[in-house]
Amino acid sequence: MKVIVDFCITPLNVGASLTPYIAECQKIIAEMGLSYQLHAYGTNIEGKWEVVMESIKRCHIRLHEMGAPRLSTQLKIGTRSDREQTMTDKVEHVQRYIAEQS
Amino acid sequence: MKVIVDFCITPLNVGASLTPYIAECQKIIAEMGLSYQLHAYGTNIEGKWEVVMESIKRCHIRLHEMGAPRLSTQLKIGTRSDREQTMTDKVEHVQRYIAEQS
Amino acid sequence: MKVIVDFCITPLNVGASLTPYIAECQKIIAEMGLSYQLHAYGTNIEGKWEVVMESIKRCHIRLHEMGAPRLSTQLKIGTRSDREQTMTDKVEHVQRYIAEQS
Amino acid sequence: MKVIVDFCITPLNVGASLTPYIAECQKIIAEMGLSYQLHAYGTNIEGKWEVVMESIKRCHIRLHEMGAPRLSTQLKIGTRSDREQTMTDKVEHVQRYIAEQS
Repeated sequence: MKVIVDFCITPLNVGASLTPYIAECQKIIAEMGLSYQLHAYGTNIEGKWEVVMESIKRCHIRLHEMGAPRLSTQLKIGTRSDREQTMTDKVEHVQRYIAEQS
Repeated sequence: MKVIVDFCITPLNVGASLTPYIAECQKIIAEMGLSYQLHAYGTNIEGKWEVVMESIKRCHIRLHEMGAPRLSTQLKIGTRSDREQTMTDKVEHVQRYIAEQS
Repeated sequence: MKVIVDFCITPLNVGASLTPYIAECQKIIAEMGLSYQLHAYGTNIEGKWEVVMESIKRCHIRLHEMGAPRLSTQLKIGTRSDREQTMTDKVEHVQRYIAEQS
Repeated sequence: MKVIVDFCITPLNVGASLTPYIAECQKIIAEMGLSYQLHAYGTNIEGKWEVVMESIKRCHIRLHEMGAPRLSTQLKIGTRSDREQTMTDKVEHVQRYIAEQS
């Protein structure tokens, strides 16, 4: 089963800058060969259910190892049985629709 | 690794009532022996990471089988390395704190 | 316009216990006369759009005043134009459906 | 108070394609003069609390007018009292950190 997710992990009680933690997660996701795209409030990832979920588990394990005592993740998970769809498709459909309307 | 999650699955394009789909997910979670609590905008579940995530995967598979062409899940995932905490603890700590203040 | 929301506010970099912050939000919501229900990963609130959203804004303002330098809220917002529905309705419909099936 | 939000609105029971609804929201946000960025699972928006929240309310009102009987929004709301930060800052900090590490 293919998924598109939006992943946002928040380490609590680690200081004001979350950058090293977010960067580490980007590295983990990249190393697993997944397609992903960082945005201002999370990271879109697409791939097989098991692989995407494994990447998120590894992020939790790794950030605890880095010293974060408490982690809260927000995850949106989209699956479809009617047709294939990529992250790029989703954005392009909307942009094309807007262009055609105007 | 122990997790507390908040799980909310939204089947798209299946009619206005989501009740049969939500009920099916409750059944799946119960059958896996997980502790869970339904609320007005989702279900809190606690257990081992692998078991909780497997329950969510089964919900996606089952709801597609029931005819939902498209599913969108919102999931919050909390993990701690500093100490054990249950769903009941979280609510009771806040309620006790409020009682002591007033 | 009536809304049912699920509200979860996370203060960053304030220490491991979030209880005083969550308790303060419960107080703000109660003082505004809104119906609400705390659960293990957030608080369900129902009421008029403007009042519910004002309560969330006041929580952000107050928690910054309490010293939280950075706040991240997760909010689900449900609205319907087809019929009235309460938080209690949502939970009872599912529970009744499950009872009838078994 | 300045906010950065991640906004994802899901119309239920309107057919499999959500594109016309998402496009309408993009138009509403643009007309209000807000900075925003569409991604594969939502839209990042930045601006004043009141203006951003008004844009989301208008999206709910408009999508109900377009015929959606039921809407569910997922919203992340970030505020800071320690310093100013833009959507672009957030992405660039992480990308610069990754570039420096490698």
